[in-house]
Amino acid sequence: MSALEYIQQAIAALDWEREPRGLYEPVAYTLQAGGKRLRPALAVIASDMFGGRREEVLPAALALEVFHNFTLLHDDVMDKAPIRRGRPTVHVRWNENTAILSGDQMLIEAYRLLTEVPAGKLPAVLRLFNRMATGICEGQQYDMDFERRDDVTLDEYINMIRLKTSVLLANALQTGALIAGAPEETQQALYRYGICIGLAFQLQDDILDVYGDPATFGKAIGGDILEGKKTYMLLTALQQAEGEDREQLLRLLGDRHADPQKKISDVTAIYTRLGVRRTCEEVMKNYTQQALAELDLIDLPHERKLILINLAEKLLARTE
Amino acid sequence: MSALEYIQQAIAALDWEREPRGLYEPVAYTLQAGGKRLRPALAVIASDMFGGRREEVLPAALALEVFHNFTLLHDDVMDKAPIRRGRPTVHVRWNENTAILSGDQMLIEAYRLLTEVPAGKLPAVLRLFNRMATGICEGQQYDMDFERRDDVTLDEYINMIRLKTSVLLANALQTGALIAGAPEETQQALYRYGICIGLAFQLQDDILDVYGDPATFGKAIGGDILEGKKTYMLLTALQQAEGEDREQLLRLLGDRHADPQKKISDVTAIYTRLGVRRTCEEVMKNYTQQALAELDLIDLPHERKLILINLAEKLLARTE
Repeated sequence: MSALEYIQQAIAALDWEREPRGLYEPVAYTLQAGGKRLRPALAVIASDMFGGRREEVLPAALALEVFHNFTLLHDDVMDKAPIRRGRPTVHVRWNENTAILSGDQMLIEAYRLLTEVPAGKLPAVLRLFNRMATGICEGQQYDMDFERRDDVTLDEYINMIRLKTSVLLANALQTGALIAGAPEETQQALYRYGICIGLAFQLQDDILDVYGDPATFGKAIGGDILEGKKTYMLLTALQQAEGEDREQLLRLLGDRHADPQKKISDVTAIYTRLGVRRTCEEVMKNYTQQALAELDLIDLPHERKLILINLAEKLLARTE
Repeated sequence: MSALEYIQQAIAALDWEREPRGLYEPVAYTLQAGGKRLRPALAVIASDMFGGRREEVLPAALALEVFHNFTLLHDDVMDKAPIRRGRPTVHVRWNENTAILSGDQMLIEAYRLLTEVPAGKLPAVLRLFNRMATGICEGQQYDMDFERRDDVTLDEYINMIRLKTSVLLANALQTGALIAGAPEETQQALYRYGICIGLAFQLQDDILDVYGDPATFGKAIGGDILEGKKTYMLLTALQQAEGEDREQLLRLLGDRHADPQKKISDVTAIYTRLGVRRTCEEVMKNYTQQALAELDLIDLPHERKLILINLAEKLLARTE
């Protein structure tokens, strides 16, 4: 059975038929909505690589998925997002208080699941998990801070998405390897691999928001532009634009009443003139190559690493 | 140094000077606002009783205080409460998103502190903590459910306040005893003592809301009556009232436009006619006596238990 199938079965088997229903129904609704299950799958994949027993890594893998869904639930409240995975968000379907409280319970449930990892591994697993969880809260705070700032640098942006996106992927890999008994340096290499693919993934997302094919990309094209989101694309453009381009870009960003389609096409035209896509793709490729270089440090036969090599390469080619 | 002084010093020494400030300032604001520090003090008191080393129980004690303040922070958002401990609540002083995210970080920080307890005790401490934390979320959900229900029973109410108030006090005592190496049966007796004093405390609160002295009680008298809160007082009255009293009580409860002072005095008059205060005081005394009986089961010299005996007796006599 593949790691993903194993995880999907385990998530489907989780029992949320507990009282009070008002607390646990939104938890079940959130966790059964699907999603890629990438994080728990990565934990199992890392464990498989080192011959770990799946039942030993499973609690930590599930904890990561429950934690990830907790962050989505609370983020959706903060962003006032109406839809998640094609269905109304919890705060819309129920209400905001329910979304806050059920999210809190999911965070507690994630820690409860963690306590089921082999006792000898528990302190280390918990330490990594706490560092990751704190990083994600810090990343979310930076993301909110950046909305109100005009002087965000590219380094600050990379640090923010490292915290908000990468550390969870990196933690999943390191935790899986740790529970399977991989050596410390190997765990670290997998952690750095996870950081790099997370950054590459987010940069690809920033590019696809502008240049994606509406037929295959899940979201509407130009959403980041309309929101004035400080993506790697925009920050690069702001850094490179001069003269008239720069003036026009700042004017477009400040114009809240512009026609949406025109705003998207005008900003995209500036990006294209500046070659922002190329810059962003270069940075993304660098992170992917760094990720692959980390795998080279791991002393395992090539075929054992193939699944992670393929994952990194798939990221570069993805269109959705 | 008393347990309380020890805890106050340790809380004052916590360092929140971390980035991003938007995340950690509200945490510092919440934890430095004061409060009774009852829960961490109970953990230290329980440890002291069994000759435990204070530095070993401290991380768990601090985790309990951080966790308690996390619940207050999120509860205040859910209740739209403007004031806490004489100062604007976090969602008023900053905003709701800040209150949600900083609360999440406090919950994670509570778990981070827990990992600093002696490694051999960590699995047991975590198991108890998770059960307690889940209980508190469930209690909060029942509390919200009860607002929309007309058929809440006295047993359901007791179960709700057990979860919402008692389990945290009980957990503090059991955890302190556990870390200090007290035997399992003793830990359980302290847990039950904590459950009982928590219930007695809440019942006293319900009584003082009606019959308290405005000069000494911290809150406005009659607040529960105006909110139509299903306290032990109201549920007892609804159970005992017959004929005209019952009709008048239901009419008063349903009347959202009644003059507040008249509503309070009319409902209080019914309570007084029915002897609701006496009933409630009896139940409260029973819980206090049960609490003291649990202490009798503990094989320690009387003077070692004096602080908990006094605490239970003080509850009965309190007016604020």
